[in-house]
Amino acid sequence: MRAVTIVDGALEFQEHPDPEPGHGELLVGVRAAGLNGADMMQRNGLYPAPPGSPADIPGLELAGEVAATGPGVSRFAVGDRVMAIVGGGGQAELAIVHERIALPVPDGVGWSAAGGFPEVFTTAHDALFSQCQLTLGERALVHGAAGGVGIAGIQLAAHAGAHVVATVRNPGLRDAVAEIGASCGVVDVCEPDAFSTKGPFDVVLELVGGPNLATDVQQLASGGRIAVIGVGGGASAELNLLTLMGKRGRIHGSTLRARPLEDKATATRAVERSVLPLLEAGSVEVPIAAEYPMTDATVAYEHFAGGGNLGKIVLLA
Amino acid sequence: MRAVTIVDGALEFQEHPDPEPGHGELLVGVRAAGLNGADMMQRNGLYPAPPGSPADIPGLELAGEVAATGPGVSRFAVGDRVMAIVGGGGQAELAIVHERIALPVPDGVGWSAAGGFPEVFTTAHDALFSQCQLTLGERALVHGAAGGVGIAGIQLAAHAGAHVVATVRNPGLRDAVAEIGASCGVVDVCEPDAFSTKGPFDVVLELVGGPNLATDVQQLASGGRIAVIGVGGGASAELNLLTLMGKRGRIHGSTLRARPLEDKATATRAVERSVLPLLEAGSVEVPIAAEYPMTDATVAYEHFAGGGNLGKIVLLA
Repeated sequence: MRAVTIVDGALEFQEHPDPEPGHGELLVGVRAAGLNGADMMQRNGLYPAPPGSPADIPGLELAGEVAATGPGVSRFAVGDRVMAIVGGGGQAELAIVHERIALPVPDGVGWSAAGGFPEVFTTAHDALFSQCQLTLGERALVHGAAGGVGIAGIQLAAHAGAHVVATVRNPGLRDAVAEIGASCGVVDVCEPDAFSTKGPFDVVLELVGGPNLATDVQQLASGGRIAVIGVGGGASAELNLLTLMGKRGRIHGSTLRARPLEDKATATRAVERSVLPLLEAGSVEVPIAAEYPMTDATVAYEHFAGGGNLGKIVLLA
Repeated sequence: MRAVTIVDGALEFQEHPDPEPGHGELLVGVRAAGLNGADMMQRNGLYPAPPGSPADIPGLELAGEVAATGPGVSRFAVGDRVMAIVGGGGQAELAIVHERIALPVPDGVGWSAAGGFPEVFTTAHDALFSQCQLTLGERALVHGAAGGVGIAGIQLAAHAGAHVVATVRNPGLRDAVAEIGASCGVVDVCEPDAFSTKGPFDVVLELVGGPNLATDVQQLASGGRIAVIGVGGGASAELNLLTLMGKRGRIHGSTLRARPLEDKATATRAVERSVLPLLEAGSVEVPIAAEYPMTDATVAYEHFAGGGNLGKIVLLA
């Protein structure tokens, strides 16, 4: 098979041995694989793949058809359409996915949307609901809302009956983000300087990181929760502990990628139960900013790194 | 009745009208009232009493006999020995306690121990178990372990089957803290500089605050939790969010005092169920550093503020 391959910080489309599915694993013929911020970091040598994942083939999510099954597989069969988060290796013609972290692709959902769904919706769902227990009637703040996780987060929060405030750095993307949110519920999109008048917030989904944390804590409601899942603006934060104590607040940090299989399977089952029906019904969408063939991965990565996009950039096999 | 009274930053023992118990409330003839760090702050005008508590009478905990009951009281009767956390007003001859946050004082537990038990054991139990879900076999770190909450925390953590590491700033208190912990389980007491070789830790009980937070996060185990419940060393902290994300860590801030009655009642019920049997059996202790009559509150506060004590300083009525 051929795969996007990191060679000294550059991307090539190289021949690799076909991977073989082990016990409980699927061999998937990849049709689409979404790009994520972690791919940019991995290309630059900053975010090595976790043990057990290919070291030089990037890709945290994929969608495709089951090409073969390993021993003991019971949930899927050859030919099934599946999508999944993976520790790495998704940007290849063939990829290995444990069946416990694979989701069925609903009828009517195209390959690009399926290839860009798992990472962002699992990350957003895990942060908002499993970590922060966002619920009906609460106020949620989504920072960095124009990115893939942000768009997933505002849709899920609005569907859960939360009042959503979202910040977008690029004013040109404001209306488009508002439009995606509006189909789900009340979403109030503003620029980063304007959110502090709209609190207090019960839950903050933090994708910008360090520069926002002090204000996030100040704007937290009593008993509020902050989930830090991205540090696009920097990792170093100042924190006033007395303010956090007074709010009885909680700060979560997490990444999906480094978790053991059982944790990923748990997060996947939660998405299957709570989010897949919304995707199937067309109630949440995976906006696609651009599609590139895998052979053009270098161009696709440059496009991603340039920013200013609404929605996912997807590689197609 | 007479009560310790804050007058322009000084303490006097003044006459006040007797308080009257409302619906569900007990009028308690106070026998002992423990001092806490918050009293020092309130005396200095830095920590006003929450709404509904006397503004000028300090005291977050007390023990005494029920002198009268308001309408609707069902859990206690006149003459019962009770102890409780209160929003304020505990350092007085009479105090009002809602019956839902009162605990029975076990036979064989003296007034000083009872007056110094509720605040520290409820705070430590809430932080370690309700917030951080400390459990069997986990590694717990208690910073500032010689204080009242720290002593409660190491005893509770050790009884829960955790491996406990405790730091004590004053080397002279190290052996005494180790001795208290040793009767409950494995407790490894060290100086603040030495703990970083003893991790990683699943749960950190942070009573020193800002200066420790960066190291706490570095020493956190995967999925670890930090409960910040004191900032004796300062409130301002630096936090590397990428490190927190990589550990999938969680930081809680909390105070007991500002919580609504229903939250305090929930915390109290948890202590009644899980900790009171240990107190009754003599398996946890409330070390008393000194006792003073309420008329000597000024001296008692100076003693507390001077630090270096092991255990509670208690005012007796």
